[in-house]
Amino acid sequence: MKHIILLLTGILCFSSCKKNIKDSAIQAPISKTIQKPDFTQYVNPFIGTSKMGHTYPGATAPFGMVQLSPQTNFEVMFNKDGSYNKETYEYCAGYQYRDTTIIGFSHTNLSGTGHSDLGDFLVMPTTGDLILDPIKTKENTKGFYSTFSHKEESASPGYYKVKLKDYNIIAELTATERVGFHQYTFPKTKDAHILLDLVYNVYHHDDKNVWTFLRVENDSLVTGYRQTKGWARTKKVFFAMQFSKPFKSYGHQKYDSVKYDGFYRRFKQEENFPEMAGKDIRAYFNFETQANEKINIKFALSSVSTAGALKNLEAELPAWDFEKTKLETQQKWNDELSKIEIKTITEADKTTFYTALYHTMLSPILYEDVDGSYLGLDQNIHTSKDFTNYSVFSLWDTYRALHPLFNITQPSRNNDMIKSMLAHQEQSVHHMLPIWSHYANENWCMIGYHATSVIADAIAKEVGDFDKKKALAASVSTANVSYFDGLGDYIKYHYVPEDKSHSSVSKTLELAYNDWCIAQIAKSNSDKKTTDIFLNRSEYYNNVYDPKIGYMRPKLANGEFRKDFDPLDTHGQGFIEGNAWNYGLYVPHQLEKMVKMMGGNERFSQHLDSLFTMKLEDKYIEKHEDITRDGIIGNYVHGNEPGHHIPYLYNWTGKPHKTQERVRMIMNTMYGPTVDGLCGNDDAGQMSAWYIFSSLGFYPVTPGSPNYAIGSPLVKEAVLHLENGKKLTIIAKNQSKDNIYVHQILVNGKAINDITISHKDIINGGEIIFEMNNIPKINP
Amino acid sequence: MKHIILLLTGILCFSSCKKNIKDSAIQAPISKTIQKPDFTQYVNPFIGTSKMGHTYPGATAPFGMVQLSPQTNFEVMFNKDGSYNKETYEYCAGYQYRDTTIIGFSHTNLSGTGHSDLGDFLVMPTTGDLILDPIKTKENTKGFYSTFSHKEESASPGYYKVKLKDYNIIAELTATERVGFHQYTFPKTKDAHILLDLVYNVYHHDDKNVWTFLRVENDSLVTGYRQTKGWARTKKVFFAMQFSKPFKSYGHQKYDSVKYDGFYRRFKQEENFPEMAGKDIRAYFNFETQANEKINIKFALSSVSTAGALKNLEAELPAWDFEKTKLETQQKWNDELSKIEIKTITEADKTTFYTALYHTMLSPILYEDVDGSYLGLDQNIHTSKDFTNYSVFSLWDTYRALHPLFNITQPSRNNDMIKSMLAHQEQSVHHMLPIWSHYANENWCMIGYHATSVIADAIAKEVGDFDKKKALAASVSTANVSYFDGLGDYIKYHYVPEDKSHSSVSKTLELAYNDWCIAQIAKSNSDKKTTDIFLNRSEYYNNVYDPKIGYMRPKLANGEFRKDFDPLDTHGQGFIEGNAWNYGLYVPHQLEKMVKMMGGNERFSQHLDSLFTMKLEDKYIEKHEDITRDGIIGNYVHGNEPGHHIPYLYNWTGKPHKTQERVRMIMNTMYGPTVDGLCGNDDAGQMSAWYIFSSLGFYPVTPGSPNYAIGSPLVKEAVLHLENGKKLTIIAKNQSKDNIYVHQILVNGKAINDITISHKDIINGGEIIFEMNNIPKINP
Repeated sequence: MKHIILLLTGILCFSSCKKNIKDSAIQAPISKTIQKPDFTQYVNPFIGTSKMGHTYPGATAPFGMVQLSPQTNFEVMFNKDGSYNKETYEYCAGYQYRDTTIIGFSHTNLSGTGHSDLGDFLVMPTTGDLILDPIKTKENTKGFYSTFSHKEESASPGYYKVKLKDYNIIAELTATERVGFHQYTFPKTKDAHILLDLVYNVYHHDDKNVWTFLRVENDSLVTGYRQTKGWARTKKVFFAMQFSKPFKSYGHQKYDSVKYDGFYRRFKQEENFPEMAGKDIRAYFNFETQANEKINIKFALSSVSTAGALKNLEAELPAWDFEKTKLETQQKWNDELSKIEIKTITEADKTTFYTALYHTMLSPILYEDVDGSYLGLDQNIHTSKDFTNYSVFSLWDTYRALHPLFNITQPSRNNDMIKSMLAHQEQSVHHMLPIWSHYANENWCMIGYHATSVIADAIAKEVGDFDKKKALAASVSTANVSYFDGLGDYIKYHYVPEDKSHSSVSKTLELAYNDWCIAQIAKSNSDKKTTDIFLNRSEYYNNVYDPKIGYMRPKLANGEFRKDFDPLDTHGQGFIEGNAWNYGLYVPHQLEKMVKMMGGNERFSQHLDSLFTMKLEDKYIEKHEDITRDGIIGNYVHGNEPGHHIPYLYNWTGKPHKTQERVRMIMNTMYGPTVDGLCGNDDAGQMSAWYIFSSLGFYPVTPGSPNYAIGSPLVKEAVLHLENGKKLTIIAKNQSKDNIYVHQILVNGKAINDITISHKDIINGGEIIFEMNNIPKINP
Repeated sequence: MKHIILLLTGILCFSSCKKNIKDSAIQAPISKTIQKPDFTQYVNPFIGTSKMGHTYPGATAPFGMVQLSPQTNFEVMFNKDGSYNKETYEYCAGYQYRDTTIIGFSHTNLSGTGHSDLGDFLVMPTTGDLILDPIKTKENTKGFYSTFSHKEESASPGYYKVKLKDYNIIAELTATERVGFHQYTFPKTKDAHILLDLVYNVYHHDDKNVWTFLRVENDSLVTGYRQTKGWARTKKVFFAMQFSKPFKSYGHQKYDSVKYDGFYRRFKQEENFPEMAGKDIRAYFNFETQANEKINIKFALSSVSTAGALKNLEAELPAWDFEKTKLETQQKWNDELSKIEIKTITEADKTTFYTALYHTMLSPILYEDVDGSYLGLDQNIHTSKDFTNYSVFSLWDTYRALHPLFNITQPSRNNDMIKSMLAHQEQSVHHMLPIWSHYANENWCMIGYHATSVIADAIAKEVGDFDKKKALAASVSTANVSYFDGLGDYIKYHYVPEDKSHSSVSKTLELAYNDWCIAQIAKSNSDKKTTDIFLNRSEYYNNVYDPKIGYMRPKLANGEFRKDFDPLDTHGQGFIEGNAWNYGLYVPHQLEKMVKMMGGNERFSQHLDSLFTMKLEDKYIEKHEDITRDGIIGNYVHGNEPGHHIPYLYNWTGKPHKTQERVRMIMNTMYGPTVDGLCGNDDAGQMSAWYIFSSLGFYPVTPGSPNYAIGSPLVKEAVLHLENGKKLTIIAKNQSKDNIYVHQILVNGKAINDITISHKDIINGGEIIFEMNNIPKINP
């Protein structure tokens, strides 16, 4: 252990002094209540936990590495015949509000994603007979899960509490950035147990475990790691688990078949033997408790090593004061939430708004130890020298509004995130920027290379001090990996041929937009040659537009459009998670040209009208889990991302009042203050970021440009406290439920006659006044 | 990559400057031939590759981390019905001389062990159709193995060569400490392939793979790692593989069932896709070659990371000069071998002797990167601050003669090995010294805690500068782990009760001896209290001696000896890999007392006479794979360790001439210059170390004491060049095949009248003369 500490000290000294100071600031004393005003009161972490929101109600710090959250209704994972139950899609974040049982509390959870992973290190306190099977024992009696009631459950930012009825245990959770903090209040019993289940995974049926390793270092400290082959193909998470009270005994059961001769012959290794390893293990720790006795657990994570986890634990949570930690984390949340102070038409809108804002800060996640070391994409240990490393970049979703929002609310973090993307590119054997960066893995989810959009947007908005030259080189490298998902053919044919690669139209459209982003990055580097190359590529969207039918349409390698084609179908029609009606409107960088190409203002706005009002047949909906009735208005899909810019497109048809109608309608019908308040996956915060922008009255239709499309604010007033020290006040005059139309916009007293406002109007502070009315303002 | 390099530089600066200098010395220019005299000519690496020697003929540097060796006759692993073929026990080192096929060349191999593991990273060059199945393809045609002939095969220290007949390829191998160096001479072909098989393991049937990971970094560099769950339960080996010529294409096949959605949908990942991961993978690299074109591969290992492997590669093998590397490694071997210059009765004896000496330097192995970092037992990365870290400690075997030999031939390395053991103890969650230290794992093989013997022996012989206080604390800690293999009961009952723990007599005897060693360590620390405690424990052997029958005998917890008992049986009689006749003579620390207890000189020497002359029934032999007819004289088992001291015990019965007869007989019958020249497993060098000592005329019957028992030298003369700069000349006057009896010993001219000589007589240099005769010298 000593050697490691010396080693880490060595690293600290030459690379991370800044970090040390930053991290030690965590220990600063704070008062015993949250500083007023308290915005955490408006956050309801249960929003999105019903239906397909895929959010979790557990405890986490802003952008924290630990997401400590209850896992419900484990039994749903399997049908009675042992087969996979497709309902498990609902369990991407481990929790469904309708459930009545909790199987334990896991330390890693994804927020709002459309695919599942994580659920690492399930901890469950129990009493009575020791039961190590979660659902049913071999004797067909009840497993270790407990029933619970929402009446005895509560959650707020950084805090979760529930009564485990079967054991009469109160479970409370809080967390610092890297450490989960458990507090279990036990009844009086000689048979109290705390289980550490290393078998459990979100989507357990996938048999994700590769290897687990545990050491009981002493009577109250356990270390180890788990390696899984889930969505992140080669994922390792290390931990250090410290109990506030020594356990009186411990043991484990191994569920895989391999016997280790040495261990097998020489030891009774299942009980009080301090070393456990294998594929599937459940460990237990036994206690005797007095009535209302509290046992606390600090559970630190690391991507590097158990020594790293211990360092994180010692740096972030040296004390055992649960209330203090809870308050500190709540204060961190309040500091973040108070960056936007709003007045709303209804109190409920505040809940929707601040919960959405909360949801924009659950990912990307911090992905480094307190000394800046982290596991890189190349599976080597790296040290972040002049940045903080982040992971979980669901970029196909989040480039649209979440990262643009960060350019207002989190510019420093967005700068770090871009630096993390550049480090990822350096570590990538493909020399590619992240597509979906996932715990030192690339999971390749969805299409395009939208890290380029995040970079271009930051450059357009003058955010960050990342190396623009390096960013350009990384983008160009990414855009030339010929084996990547149709890209070689895209470069060769100037579109992705449908007979060469599925989802060919979506790919062509997104690559063209990404190439426009790269052109912007090149332009900011004064690299004319590269700018021209990528501006040229950014026009390739034209090549998949069929003017004869007026839709984007899959084209074959021979230059002909594919004959079979249903523009309403989301399957096998050249689009991914969308149809031609929706996804075919995806030319965010040349909106005017697109409108013109598609028949001009009138025809395009009629298309939009039809899109929002047509009745879509069931056959087009039920097939895809990302598109459900809950998230659909006509044929417009708000519950998934490819159409998020669409409501704002009326602006480009001379009918901004229709944008204003639609965005207000979407805010009121697709979002709400209840557990089912999200109409689809929150998608790592993208859905919520859409709401934040739209509530404030504008939206980044073209990330990579400094302009926002104007919508219709939902707030009556918003004060944005910007990182640069400036303050922007947004006032919606005459705001009401019916006054959804914008008649006039005054930026610092000056009227705007455009359909957009610029980032400078936001970031320089001052005042933006929207004059609202219940009558549309029809342009002449 | 840059970050890692910075990181490693940081480590270097504060902890390993010494190492850097040491390692850079590897690059020093040397002449194009080995400095004379050339002792490597007497080494035949094929000795022990037939029958049960379990040695390998491949290329390695002295104590090197890489053991690059051919793997033969893979098909023997399975019977036709798919079941495990017990003949695989012969394949602990991957090679059997009688075989006619080679499946490839692996980078890690154990030398002489009685259990198998390793075989990491099998490389095989082929031509013609690409075949990825080793034995048979799905179409039932031949796999990628090749036939070979011993006529076209040769091996010498640090070098191996063979013609792969099926492909007309000459394969040559050499190695530095951490890098294997391949040279393949191809015929002219458009279809040359180099396979990298990550599925292969020694004892493949165990399904040892946990995870493998590969990256094609560029057109001639591949990195990755493999994690296995073999004898080392949680073993990871990282590699960097550099080709001298860019491959024109590459690919892989995965043999496990898990499909990764992201990869599966977006890429044709099997060909020219630079990232591979999964449980079981075989990769291939394609070339076009001219006639006699050489392709070289440098294959570096690391326990730390692929970055570490690359660092090792760059530090140790920057150039591509195969001949130069081969010569440098041969020179290293010659430097080691020339530490003992001998004259012998026959030339063949030189081969036997120098091959044995060679076999004493194949393990323990170096187990750290060039910067001193290594994977610790706690699975964290450590840095060896004032020592070089070693692994592969087969201590139940090697404490007997190998580590004592190191105190003469390798005192610096033995000091490092002891420091490695102390580091192991610090990292052990059991706070125990190694039992069998195995690639950052404890495999718990065999009984006792013999690291204490290695420590005590070094202290008795004043070897090393390790911390004696720490060594005592580590030993005492080890000796008090109550759950360890009968130890708690041993402490409680003052013997291990047979009804509590198997092999109870062997355990009692060995623990008692180990406790005597701890007493010696305590004494050297002037810790009287601890000395007394462990001297007291060292007498516990008395408690398993049954004076009624005159044998050590299993005793029950109730204090009664077990009724059923067969002192000739090696199974279930309270002994492990031995019977009461052999193993029952194991009180090395109190030989006089033991002889007295067992009836005195006459009776004891009669027992020894019977032991060496009785005819053992077959039923006692065939059951155990470590005890075969080849290694047996009467009922004495030389092919396994517990009796290695026995031939020397006549000295304690007043009949040293009988020792002289037996050790000469054993040297002549149990060792030889042929491929079947080892009568049993070489056991990581222990069998060979017995031969070296005995050849020189003395043997460490009691490691932990400074004394050696006198035998009968086989050499005519030996000059030992000691690390302290001194020189010891041993002369056997009148030496001949018949003159096996020692009549007089003169140490620097002074006659010895004892049955032992002391370590000082050796290490201070000078001259020892044995006066040999063909008539026994019977003491009056």
